[in-house]
Amino acid sequence: MNFAIQLASEAKGQTSPNPLVGAVCVNNHRIVGMGAHLEAGKPHAEVHALAMAGENARGSDLYVTLEPCSHYGKTPPCALKIIDSGVARVFIATLDPNPLVSGRGVKLLEEAGIEVITGLLKQEAAQMNQAFFHSITHQMPYVTLKSAVTLDGRMATEAGSSKWITSEEAREDVHRLRHIHDAILVGVNTVLHDQPFLTTRLPHGGKNPIRVILDRHLRTPADTPVTADPAAGTLIYCQEDAPDVQYRKHVEVIRLPDSVSFLQEVLRDLYTRGIMTLLVEGGPAVHSSFIEQGLVQELYLYQAPKLIGNGPSVFTSNRRADMADSLKLEITDVDQLGSDIRIRAIFKEAD
Amino acid sequence: MNFAIQLASEAKGQTSPNPLVGAVCVNNHRIVGMGAHLEAGKPHAEVHALAMAGENARGSDLYVTLEPCSHYGKTPPCALKIIDSGVARVFIATLDPNPLVSGRGVKLLEEAGIEVITGLLKQEAAQMNQAFFHSITHQMPYVTLKSAVTLDGRMATEAGSSKWITSEEAREDVHRLRHIHDAILVGVNTVLHDQPFLTTRLPHGGKNPIRVILDRHLRTPADTPVTADPAAGTLIYCQEDAPDVQYRKHVEVIRLPDSVSFLQEVLRDLYTRGIMTLLVEGGPAVHSSFIEQGLVQELYLYQAPKLIGNGPSVFTSNRRADMADSLKLEITDVDQLGSDIRIRAIFKEAD
Ligand SMILES: NC(=O)c1ccc[n+]([C@@H]2O[C@H](COP(=O)([O-])OP(=O)(O)OC[C@H]3O[C@@H](n4cnc5c(N)ncnc54)[C@H](OP(=O)(O)O)[C@@H]3O)[C@@H](O)[C@H]2O)c1
Ligand SMILES: NC(=O)c1ccc[n+]([C@@H]2O[C@H](COP(=O)([O-])OP(=O)(O)OC[C@H]3O[C@@H](n4cnc5c(N)ncnc54)[C@H](OP(=O)(O)O)[C@@H]3O)[C@@H](O)[C@H]2O)c1
Ligand SMILES: [Zn+2]
Ligand SMILES: [Zn+2]
Repeated sequence: MNFAIQLASEAKGQTSPNPLVGAVCVNNHRIVGMGAHLEAGKPHAEVHALAMAGENARGSDLYVTLEPCSHYGKTPPCALKIIDSGVARVFIATLDPNPLVSGRGVKLLEEAGIEVITGLLKQEAAQMNQAFFHSITHQMPYVTLKSAVTLDGRMATEAGSSKWITSEEAREDVHRLRHIHDAILVGVNTVLHDQPFLTTRLPHGGKNPIRVILDRHLRTPADTPVTADPAAGTLIYCQEDAPDVQYRKHVEVIRLPDSVSFLQEVLRDLYTRGIMTLLVEGGPAVHSSFIEQGLVQELYLYQAPKLIGNGPSVFTSNRRADMADSLKLEITDVDQLGSDIRIRAIFKEAD
Repeated sequence: MNFAIQLASEAKGQTSPNPLVGAVCVNNHRIVGMGAHLEAGKPHAEVHALAMAGENARGSDLYVTLEPCSHYGKTPPCALKIIDSGVARVFIATLDPNPLVSGRGVKLLEEAGIEVITGLLKQEAAQMNQAFFHSITHQMPYVTLKSAVTLDGRMATEAGSSKWITSEEAREDVHRLRHIHDAILVGVNTVLHDQPFLTTRLPHGGKNPIRVILDRHLRTPADTPVTADPAAGTLIYCQEDAPDVQYRKHVEVIRLPDSVSFLQEVLRDLYTRGIMTLLVEGGPAVHSSFIEQGLVQELYLYQAPKLIGNGPSVFTSNRRADMADSLKLEITDVDQLGSDIRIRAIFKEAD
């Protein structure tokens, strides 16, 4: 199962909106087939593994990181394929997170007389598909917040200067984050102030996430990089009564009813568009809204060895007078990137 | 020489106000003597090494991390001792930082016909005695600033709540810092607000630093722990016109003329009292003064995985509108302590 997880992980970033899945077929202590799900619409991991195994699948043990599917989607159900191939036992790490189908694959297999063992390395397998599990459960993308700060915690000066807080190594790392996310979100002030392209620029290329702008009054100009440069699609979320602006074809304006839950509506809409993973790149006002509303699952904090003495932090809230009112996270990784530090932390309340 | 540095380092924290010094005596490729300076007033490293070597010192190579002394202090000059013992060659890592005597030891040895080689592992040896070198050069203590902050960089909430930001592991680590410092400094607001003891509480005991309070108007009460508990001496720096307050015997009030350079005067006075290393524990107002005036050499930042959204950062300054105006540091160490992170950084401009 460890190997199956490893196989699955290799496709990280290229299967969205599908999960990472790996499968290993073992007969008589020998691996006779292996596979991973590589891209949405392409064969599932089990299909690859069984095809490789051929006749050796008969009587074998199949290890698969996610419950085999039981319905006709873009591909026929893997559960039937497994039954047909004559597999004797199936080891499953995690059940399908979708409550409508969860357990159905197991049931199909068992009804066909196959022994099914679930839960092996469950945590490791779930971990790998955290975003997939989260987004299906909440019908919203898994949100990762990125912030570049000084050692005294500022994202910019009071006057708005933020170029460049961090080193080139840290900024390149942000492009790696963009590469593995379906969409990237910023507030309109950041668009106006920094005129960012929000594309992925890595030495060996990379995948551009969809660009998302929070802009209730449609202040985003038609000639700023995100609207002028069609390298990636751009979604601008505004209120119903926002002015009319003509943008190029790659820009879509989405008007939402004025509501206290603007941010939640945005996330729900993004989910319906197949966006499972969202990278929020700020600025501080947008970060604070996400954090205060409990809509963030993960934080990447890039800290530069500088002290500036003024400007907004990653989070501003006047609702927390006592230290005990703080939001709790767990630091999972700390790395040095050039002269900077990158901290990865996950929000404890999330899930 | 590497071994000599290692020997010297073992006495870290117990030689103040003297530097760490190690010596190794080698004759015919065999170590015949070794020593370290262990405590102020006690024999110097060379004396131990030569005593151990006895007759084997004759014709030997002596490796010593700091230039042998040339004057009669609490102990007779080591240079003469070396000459008497018949050592053939002396390897010295760093010269004496005191401009009044620097080079004199070398001269004495050379005049006696001993071959002297200087500069071997100079940086490593200087590093180990950074505080000693700094304080002699600047006639002020070497200042280390400690701060416990949330991930959004706050030392307390706006309402003054700061208990507890960090985990027990991080707080115990602060006691280790106290143990290796000669003095510890806080602002009067921290005394009033937190009523700290400012003593070293480690599982196996520890050395209490002298407690120093910045308190221009002598607002420190006579019955708060630092003034009521005589476990360590307490120095309170105030202005000449501050009110009269009666404190217990372990408390000394030092009145300084009202001046723009209050902080510098405090540091100069601490130096004359033999304080080479000062740990500044805050709060934020005191930290900001030290940082803005360029009086800090080193920073220990304890970061807890929390977001609170309001309250002061480690540094507040309205003089730096552009990110390029930031103070630059270099991160030398990053460690995880329980659920927290400890970052050690040194100020680039310092020295
Ligand atoms: N260090 C970093 O990592 C980093 C990253 C990005 C930006 N920055 C810096 O941050 C500064 C801009 O940040 P900022 O805080 O002024 O603005 P921002 O977060 O970029 O944008 C805030 C604006 O977004 C709109 N918005 C729509 N929905 C929102 C919601 N739910 N919550 C919050 N805002 C929402 C609001 O304008 P409407 O009311 O008009 O909709 C709001 O004024 C710039 O100086 C930039 O350089 C730094
Ligand atoms: N997280 C942490 O690591 C940490 C550490 C310590 C404290 N704290 C928290 O910090 C808060 C107190 O901090 P604070 O900023 O209000 O006060 P503070 O830094 O503790 O003390 C500031 C006071 O010290 C006096 N002072 C004398 N010389 C000074 C100088 N050169 N620069 C600055 N101050 C000088 C001033 O009072 P006069 O004008 O009367 O002399 C000033 O008001 C408390 O909530 C405490 O819990 C947190
Ligand atoms: Zn399938
Ligand atoms: Zn000596």
